[in-house]
Amino acid sequence: MNDIDIESLKGIANQLRIHSISATTAAGSGHPTSCCSAADLVAALFFGHMRYDPKNPHYWNNDRFILSKGHAAPLLYAAWAEAGLIPTEELLKLRQLGSDLEGHPTPRLAFVDVATGSLGQGLSVGVGMALCARLDHLDYRTYVLLGDGECAEGAVWEAASLAGIHQLNNLVAVVDVNRLGQSQPTAFGHDLNVYKRRFEAFGWRTEEIDGHDIEEILEVLAAVGLGNQPLVILAKTLKGAGVSFIQDREGWHGRPLSKEEAARAIAELQPSAKSGLGHAISQPAQMPAPKNDAPASYPPLSYKIGESVATREAYGNALARMGEVDPRIVAMDGDTKNSTYAEKFFKKFPNRFTESFIAEQSMVGVATGFGARGKVPFVSTFACFLSRAFDQIRVAGISMANLKLTGSHVGVSIGEDGPSQMGLEDLAMTRATAGSTVLYPSDAVCAEKLVERMAEHRGICFLRTSRPRMPVIYNNDEQFTIGGAKVLRQSPGDKVTVVAAGVTLFEALKAADELKGQGIGVTVIDAYSIKPLAKDVIQSAASRTNNQVITVEDHYAEGGLGDAVAGELSALGMAVHKLAVRELPHSGKAEELLAKYGIDAAAIVAKVKSLNS
Amino acid sequence: MNDIDIESLKGIANQLRIHSISATTAAGSGHPTSCCSAADLVAALFFGHMRYDPKNPHYWNNDRFILSKGHAAPLLYAAWAEAGLIPTEELLKLRQLGSDLEGHPTPRLAFVDVATGSLGQGLSVGVGMALCARLDHLDYRTYVLLGDGECAEGAVWEAASLAGIHQLNNLVAVVDVNRLGQSQPTAFGHDLNVYKRRFEAFGWRTEEIDGHDIEEILEVLAAVGLGNQPLVILAKTLKGAGVSFIQDREGWHGRPLSKEEAARAIAELQPSAKSGLGHAISQPAQMPAPKNDAPASYPPLSYKIGESVATREAYGNALARMGEVDPRIVAMDGDTKNSTYAEKFFKKFPNRFTESFIAEQSMVGVATGFGARGKVPFVSTFACFLSRAFDQIRVAGISMANLKLTGSHVGVSIGEDGPSQMGLEDLAMTRATAGSTVLYPSDAVCAEKLVERMAEHRGICFLRTSRPRMPVIYNNDEQFTIGGAKVLRQSPGDKVTVVAAGVTLFEALKAADELKGQGIGVTVIDAYSIKPLAKDVIQSAASRTNNQVITVEDHYAEGGLGDAVAGELSALGMAVHKLAVRELPHSGKAEELLAKYGIDAAAIVAKVKSLNS
Repeated sequence: MNDIDIESLKGIANQLRIHSISATTAAGSGHPTSCCSAADLVAALFFGHMRYDPKNPHYWNNDRFILSKGHAAPLLYAAWAEAGLIPTEELLKLRQLGSDLEGHPTPRLAFVDVATGSLGQGLSVGVGMALCARLDHLDYRTYVLLGDGECAEGAVWEAASLAGIHQLNNLVAVVDVNRLGQSQPTAFGHDLNVYKRRFEAFGWRTEEIDGHDIEEILEVLAAVGLGNQPLVILAKTLKGAGVSFIQDREGWHGRPLSKEEAARAIAELQPSAKSGLGHAISQPAQMPAPKNDAPASYPPLSYKIGESVATREAYGNALARMGEVDPRIVAMDGDTKNSTYAEKFFKKFPNRFTESFIAEQSMVGVATGFGARGKVPFVSTFACFLSRAFDQIRVAGISMANLKLTGSHVGVSIGEDGPSQMGLEDLAMTRATAGSTVLYPSDAVCAEKLVERMAEHRGICFLRTSRPRMPVIYNNDEQFTIGGAKVLRQSPGDKVTVVAAGVTLFEALKAADELKGQGIGVTVIDAYSIKPLAKDVIQSAASRTNNQVITVEDHYAEGGLGDAVAGELSALGMAVHKLAVRELPHSGKAEELLAKYGIDAAAIVAKVKSLNS
Repeated sequence: MNDIDIESLKGIANQLRIHSISATTAAGSGHPTSCCSAADLVAALFFGHMRYDPKNPHYWNNDRFILSKGHAAPLLYAAWAEAGLIPTEELLKLRQLGSDLEGHPTPRLAFVDVATGSLGQGLSVGVGMALCARLDHLDYRTYVLLGDGECAEGAVWEAASLAGIHQLNNLVAVVDVNRLGQSQPTAFGHDLNVYKRRFEAFGWRTEEIDGHDIEEILEVLAAVGLGNQPLVILAKTLKGAGVSFIQDREGWHGRPLSKEEAARAIAELQPSAKSGLGHAISQPAQMPAPKNDAPASYPPLSYKIGESVATREAYGNALARMGEVDPRIVAMDGDTKNSTYAEKFFKKFPNRFTESFIAEQSMVGVATGFGARGKVPFVSTFACFLSRAFDQIRVAGISMANLKLTGSHVGVSIGEDGPSQMGLEDLAMTRATAGSTVLYPSDAVCAEKLVERMAEHRGICFLRTSRPRMPVIYNNDEQFTIGGAKVLRQSPGDKVTVVAAGVTLFEALKAADELKGQGIGVTVIDAYSIKPLAKDVIQSAASRTNNQVITVEDHYAEGGLGDAVAGELSALGMAVHKLAVRELPHSGKAEELLAKYGIDAAAIVAKVKSLNS
């Protein structure tokens, strides 16, 4: 690159600074100084290095760019505006309700693959994209821009470790080491060597540069892809760089300039600013599209009624079965694949499986990355350990990600391992995720069919599987839909509707049989779709049982099935009585624990009788 | 230490192995091979190095031991049995409902400070304890035994970084590098050098040893406390060590030996086994007890009715005020202290404040550690970022920890920063935590009083604070209790009871005023205690408004205030109508967003009218 180009990039960087300052001042909020520190890096990446079609940000072989330090959103928006995708006037609508140029990036914008703004998450998504490039034989590279402050997040090191293990030389992290956090300087200031030693220990090639020296930036970028390690560029920068009176000063995080200050800043920057419009951008190689077509149908099931199968095993069976015809399916697990049965998929399709080791945050991030590249990623671990990745799941909701989560070993029915291994809050967590679908099968047929529905449905789906083997109760051709429910027992004169799912469904059926012998009729519903809930089915049944409903769940009383049913039906004045785990459980045998915590057949019988006394 | 002692420790290690194998075989489940790899390390620590009173595990200057690899619980139980605290016969009750020797350790046992079993959490708790030792001028040391597999967890590196920053030379991590995970070998096998480079990069002194060589273990332990860095001992071990037919073999994770196999194993171990009973254990120095007394009362408040104060700011005011008289209070924040207002405490009591940087998992773990040492730790960050630490919070529930969490910037009322910064699932998350208390103040007086109640109440408490400034509505001497609620508007003939909290309380009051003008009476309740909920207050009010209740919350519709109220009242046949955020929100102005997502005064008015039409 010649001197003229270097000067152009310097000019574009200042233009990006001007946009960032103008937009945040117009909005009256935002993070202009965090934009300024990274402006030279972004200018060099977008206008001097990355290969992408700026008119078609979704093109499959475009280099990917993830702004992990999402609060620098105005800089990202400015870069795409200067690349010609959006009019620069739009930038002044930053943070307005009527504009998708939100405070932090979301995929409401075509050029944003995943939402960022909760720090430390971008790198794992980048790992997923880089792994996906390999799987799809595409040569795009993935660039992740991080702040130095977010390198305190463990999630960064989970991702860094996995990238090192996989020798992802198509992944580049750029750390904008501007030394200043939100409330004080970072722990390591401008000591790049700390970051260097850390990334090297995690298997990365490192380059230390002056993040405001365009030539130096381009020089290290020119060596991207060399060797067999991921590359991290450690860029020493100044927060607010380019503006004399805010540069490298504390107290300027998340603070827009006043109109007067902005004018002063722009006066400093304007003389050397240059538009990026018309600047040549490297084009990506044209390569065959990845095979991401959904199959017409999945192979049939072959369970026998009464056969004893755990839903967690059915999950593994489903993945292995569906993987044969659905090339989009990839899977991940956090060193529990022999318990979640993801192993069945791994053994059949090892190149479509990523072992995440015991690092659930990175696992969910990697899956989100695969999903953003057109795959259907299935993630599994014990349900309780998905709580480790709740922030990643939450942000995947904001990303409107196509992400399939399976949590096994739910509830007290896991038995002896004790409370630390029991998923008792997973329904609360996954229900409270934006746009989520929450499914909870009781038998193997239902589990497998729901895995099919998950693959078909675009969005975040959570499947709750159980440890114990349970009898198959549905025929292989039974249909299950998102938002559905099955009425398994119903007779005229039933006194109560019992709504259950998973292991408690079998307790409900036992209770119904026992009560029938005593002349008390009970309607039993399998609420396998927790969100959306089959409100109409439950309401219709309840209306025939004197508006009396009992819910039974192997989950805490808060935020689970009971709350879901009560939250829907109580507006109708129906009475919902919750049976759920109401105290910290203990180790013990599964059946002992179901009894002790009041969610077994005996507890249901007692509750039904109390309502009829 | 002489040769006789070395031989004794070797014998004790084998005795611990025998107990671990016997107990898991008796239980029919558990992780004997994970015990065997660490048996020599534990024998050396408990019987040749650590200073503690085995009859009084709570003594304040005992060295602390955290079994981060909690699945080796039988080994821990065996060590305490051989140290004389519990009868060795008890060990065979492992995992039974009637015994507190659970599958993974919990503080139901006096010698367990915090629950473990969700991997990667022990080190951050250890950091908290080590920091607390300094604060309390005690010379106890904190030892954390980790597995190699769990070093994939980012939480380990968050904690490692903080320990390095604080130069915690009173903290010792021991990594049992047995090379085998649950479902496959770890990524790095026996390559100790990988771990060595990582810990060194994070500021630790490292020692690499043969984890089965008692002399070598004792030798490196003898140098504990030297220098100004935390120490990690990287111990190369064999899973199942000591038993020829399981040692270093795959497929033996989480698998007890059959009775026959156990007999063979014990026959191998017995000849060299030796009881620890009667073995000398180093005593801790007698030092003055830390000052952890609760104050008789807290200084009074001095707000003015109508004054505009954000509840987040009131939180900071409360901490600073209470800290004067309550030496137990310590605080942490994740580089948001200028937004959460924890800064007010930090400025006044810098030595009682730990800046956790952007590492929420470690922050909660550190706080749990302080809590386990008698402090009252207050943790703050944006509510949405507490989701990053949900697994730590979940496990703190199992630890029955004394932990105070404050999540600021909740709901769409934060405005322009957008959804990634909005806490919209925090009520669902914290309600579904075992033993939790969930509080949500609307004004500054309520917020401050609730911080007092949190300090007084032993257990996990969550305070939900808001970004906007709101008028003070309560007098300084108003009383607030956990489980309470305030009826703010009530008249004979009221049509509906509106239950709100936080910013929506002000919307409810506005709506009530507007409706009053139209001749429609509305009861308004401030439900500042979400869990436990003031069911009686709400029920009593609702019974006077035709059993019609509207809930309004700046939270997703799932698992929050609406579900809490519906879950309690629906069993009584009362109708609960939820107003909540039902879609992924957008950036915008706070008042625009309250309107757009249907939780403002206008939405309440419309809902009330729809119920009365």
